[in-house]
Amino acid sequence: MNEYAILHIPDSRYCFPVGEKELVIRLRMAKEDESAKVFLIYACKYGFHEKQESTAMHVKYSDRLYNYYEIRLQLEDVRLAYIFRIEEAGKIYYFSEDAVTETYNFEEGFYSFFQMPYINKNDLLHTVDWMKNAVFYEIFVDRFFMGDEKKDRTYINMRWGDMPFSGSFAGGDLRGIAQKLHYIEELGVTALYLTPIFLSVSNHKYDIIDYMQIDPQFGAKQDLEELVRLAHKRGIRILLDAVFNHCSMEMEQFQDVLVKGRKSPYYNWFIIDGDFPDTEKRNYECFASCNYMPKLNTADKGVQDFLIRIAVYWIEKYDIDGWRLDVSDEVSHEFWRKFRNAVKEAKPDAVIIGENWHDAYPYLMGDQYDSIMNYAFTKACLDYFARGSFDARQMAERLNSNLMRNLEQVNRMMLNMLDSHDTHRFYTEVGKNKDKLLAALALEIIFIGAPCIYYGTEICMEGGYDPDSRRCFNWEKSAWDNVLLEKIKDLIGLRELAVIAEGNIRITDRHKMLLVERGIPGKKIRLYINMTEETQTEHMQGNLGYRLLCSNLARWEKAASMEIDRSGFAIVEIEE
Amino acid sequence: MNEYAILHIPDSRYCFPVGEKELVIRLRMAKEDESAKVFLIYACKYGFHEKQESTAMHVKYSDRLYNYYEIRLQLEDVRLAYIFRIEEAGKIYYFSEDAVTETYNFEEGFYSFFQMPYINKNDLLHTVDWMKNAVFYEIFVDRFFMGDEKKDRTYINMRWGDMPFSGSFAGGDLRGIAQKLHYIEELGVTALYLTPIFLSVSNHKYDIIDYMQIDPQFGAKQDLEELVRLAHKRGIRILLDAVFNHCSMEMEQFQDVLVKGRKSPYYNWFIIDGDFPDTEKRNYECFASCNYMPKLNTADKGVQDFLIRIAVYWIEKYDIDGWRLDVSDEVSHEFWRKFRNAVKEAKPDAVIIGENWHDAYPYLMGDQYDSIMNYAFTKACLDYFARGSFDARQMAERLNSNLMRNLEQVNRMMLNMLDSHDTHRFYTEVGKNKDKLLAALALEIIFIGAPCIYYGTEICMEGGYDPDSRRCFNWEKSAWDNVLLEKIKDLIGLRELAVIAEGNIRITDRHKMLLVERGIPGKKIRLYINMTEETQTEHMQGNLGYRLLCSNLARWEKAASMEIDRSGFAIVEIEE
Repeated sequence: MNEYAILHIPDSRYCFPVGEKELVIRLRMAKEDESAKVFLIYACKYGFHEKQESTAMHVKYSDRLYNYYEIRLQLEDVRLAYIFRIEEAGKIYYFSEDAVTETYNFEEGFYSFFQMPYINKNDLLHTVDWMKNAVFYEIFVDRFFMGDEKKDRTYINMRWGDMPFSGSFAGGDLRGIAQKLHYIEELGVTALYLTPIFLSVSNHKYDIIDYMQIDPQFGAKQDLEELVRLAHKRGIRILLDAVFNHCSMEMEQFQDVLVKGRKSPYYNWFIIDGDFPDTEKRNYECFASCNYMPKLNTADKGVQDFLIRIAVYWIEKYDIDGWRLDVSDEVSHEFWRKFRNAVKEAKPDAVIIGENWHDAYPYLMGDQYDSIMNYAFTKACLDYFARGSFDARQMAERLNSNLMRNLEQVNRMMLNMLDSHDTHRFYTEVGKNKDKLLAALALEIIFIGAPCIYYGTEICMEGGYDPDSRRCFNWEKSAWDNVLLEKIKDLIGLRELAVIAEGNIRITDRHKMLLVERGIPGKKIRLYINMTEETQTEHMQGNLGYRLLCSNLARWEKAASMEIDRSGFAIVEIEE
Repeated sequence: MNEYAILHIPDSRYCFPVGEKELVIRLRMAKEDESAKVFLIYACKYGFHEKQESTAMHVKYSDRLYNYYEIRLQLEDVRLAYIFRIEEAGKIYYFSEDAVTETYNFEEGFYSFFQMPYINKNDLLHTVDWMKNAVFYEIFVDRFFMGDEKKDRTYINMRWGDMPFSGSFAGGDLRGIAQKLHYIEELGVTALYLTPIFLSVSNHKYDIIDYMQIDPQFGAKQDLEELVRLAHKRGIRILLDAVFNHCSMEMEQFQDVLVKGRKSPYYNWFIIDGDFPDTEKRNYECFASCNYMPKLNTADKGVQDFLIRIAVYWIEKYDIDGWRLDVSDEVSHEFWRKFRNAVKEAKPDAVIIGENWHDAYPYLMGDQYDSIMNYAFTKACLDYFARGSFDARQMAERLNSNLMRNLEQVNRMMLNMLDSHDTHRFYTEVGKNKDKLLAALALEIIFIGAPCIYYGTEICMEGGYDPDSRRCFNWEKSAWDNVLLEKIKDLIGLRELAVIAEGNIRITDRHKMLLVERGIPGKKIRLYINMTEETQTEHMQGNLGYRLLCSNLARWEKAASMEIDRSGFAIVEIEE
């Protein structure tokens, strides 16, 4: 047995409660040991020395090196002690806090068993129910649609549809979004994520001057109120962008410190090396190296109160449904804990989504965010669909590896994206190949978590890196590929299936294709994606009731076989 | 290279800040790869794609399977991106969030580098300064010394010195401790941990009726006030026992629920299955299976406020120096976070020590406790000194493995014990072998963290499991082994050395002996322990300035060699 590979960490992503009497336990082992039999040996910790239960564990996820065994336990007494028993090549091993041993002294187990000492309600992370089958749509507000024809338009410095520069203003606004809600609803979208809308001099508005004002370019508070009201009527939720790592140097508190230095009551709101901030010397902490975006000191109680009031204000007064958190990994854990408490108190099913590009487990243990923008998913999709640097097996391995970073509840709330305002457009990345775009969207839709479609993906909008990825939405319907658009709507429609909302996930490769399976008792759906250069064939088992839900297949012969062309996909439903 | 073994987890015990501009990074690799060269490749995350620094990493800890490389970085810009480069057998590997690869695309590093995005002050765990060279002494109050001769003694049901039963009361009290402070100070002790002192019907008082009253058997509030005052005068700090997982069924709030059921304002203070708690059916959660110790629901805000008021009260009014937390692993993380905030606000250098018998990292990330009672250390000492189930190498491996569970700051605050009121007496475990006891104490004293001596260990008190481990202290000096006692005092005296307070630690084996080295620039101390059946010899390097600080050696020849008999130890100081 490969001892080096074996890993379990109690009270972590390897052992976590999913209910008050229910928990998930994972064990990592080397793939080469797949013939081993793995058992969980467990009991209430106060009786573990006397008597234990034993249950077989099975592989649920696999990446390049490892298999991950997973089990769900329903318990009467949640004060759990456990170890693992592994049978391999005629030998028996035990795995406990004492690592791998050939015998185990249960009498002294209290020194070395793993444990979940108790499931305290207030430590339990709940999946926000509406996230389970949500479909997000990210809107870069200045570029989506201009709805307020009467506003002061002197700030607009480009014609709608021209190529944007970093200083371009196109005129998109909140009323524009409100006017396009029918379009958004028809697409099947159930939640909008809007880039920042508060007072700011830039088009992206990630440098905020006043968090309590809507930027007049985008509208006024009544416009947000109306947008939320109309969106909610259509069952569409609204997430705003919380830019809490930094602000604009024009924010009044920073301006006060510029003038008064240490004597300002706001001096400690920033992190300044000296008596006064100096915008030329940049002797204060900033976002990246942008002197006009001074970093907020989220260790300061004044800043904490200020930001939390903002977070709660827009929920309580304008009924927004959650926050996306900008540069959230540079903000303190302690602040996010307070933020979470306040947000969830104001609206228990508000969702909190961090912008962390990396493994964010320390923020996702249940006390800070609900999930993150899943850029690890984005990267895997680039490698598989756009660059061909992954084959189906590598893609399956990477996706499984990513899933093992987090609790199951977090995976169910992940914001899965192909692209965003901070990347190249995915359609451009796949060389404008519509089959590839559609296949990638199929994966995003079927995957565990909530897909987030960057505005215009559905009409094949192109673009490289910022500002090119932020072009104006083309409302000229004649330019759209309506066949593709309908396919995308069909795909999005699948999000209403219970198997998507509640199902478990298995990701493997089959006949050189990626196979993603979601399942609930009695029902499964399978997504096949073929990114090879040849057509691949899957022989369906005739005795199962199954039907094709969605595909870009040329041929489909029920009860026989399915031929999936290159860059093709098929989604099949199976009744058991 | 053994890919299976390689492990790094960002923002964890594998990468953590130790100062506002300083952090520690660890990498785990297979021992078989010890010839590999390991480099940390790093830069500010905003410039990582362009230019990186490279620094060699070295092995600092080793256990049975793995070597642990560790590096301390001082940084100007703490927004750190990093990966590892490993040179092995003529090949180069990179290790990042993408696991092990043979090439690494720095251009797209933002998708896969490891990172410490920022060091926020409020997420930083500080080592409580006085803990660094503290020497604790645990007192089971009823059995230490009776100082109040005038109190109502009718509850006392055993003669001092008789064998205690589980229901025995011997009469020890707070005044008794105060009267023995000169003894405690002479021993070299700098902090007392007292088992619970609040109102309770038991001798151990882990079932508390009123957390705001001192149990009259032990004295009154003035007695605590006086004890703290006198102890502080001698430089001795006082920790009390916070029994917050459960209370006594006689606590008024539980009594109220017994009468009023769901109508009681305290119904949610407990976890009850039904309208009323029923002490016979035990339809409510308890400690272990003790119906007289109902579990407190630390998810309830009322309970949280109640317990936190208690925690702060005894600090603010009686100036105690911290809390030991009973059954702390069954209490919620969220509660401990609030508890920590309140305690540290009341007294920034108060110390918080959990009773977790297992890997407690989820409680030790900086937001909950400072450290735990180190029962993993206890168990290793049993295996090495008492049972001979570990040789020196296995002992070194186990101690290293335990150290890798936690941040360095936590290791410096660990409460290292050979025994406690919840174990057998260590002296009994080593078969009353005084050499073994002394050698084990030497390890405890030299080890990183604070030793905690269970009352009476210094006079060779014996005892099996509770109640036998809680015998009365024998104040009859004629029964003491004064030679041994002086040796123990000598050992304790070493805690004043800067190398103990500030030094790093290396644990290895040498000539079949355990070798523990503590070091600061220019100075080292080495502890050798020989638990083999033969005398072992260490040849000292003649060109070093060294001296014997403490030992139980029969012979000692300076500038030549040192012979360490079985069960012997020697502590040597080396000037470099």
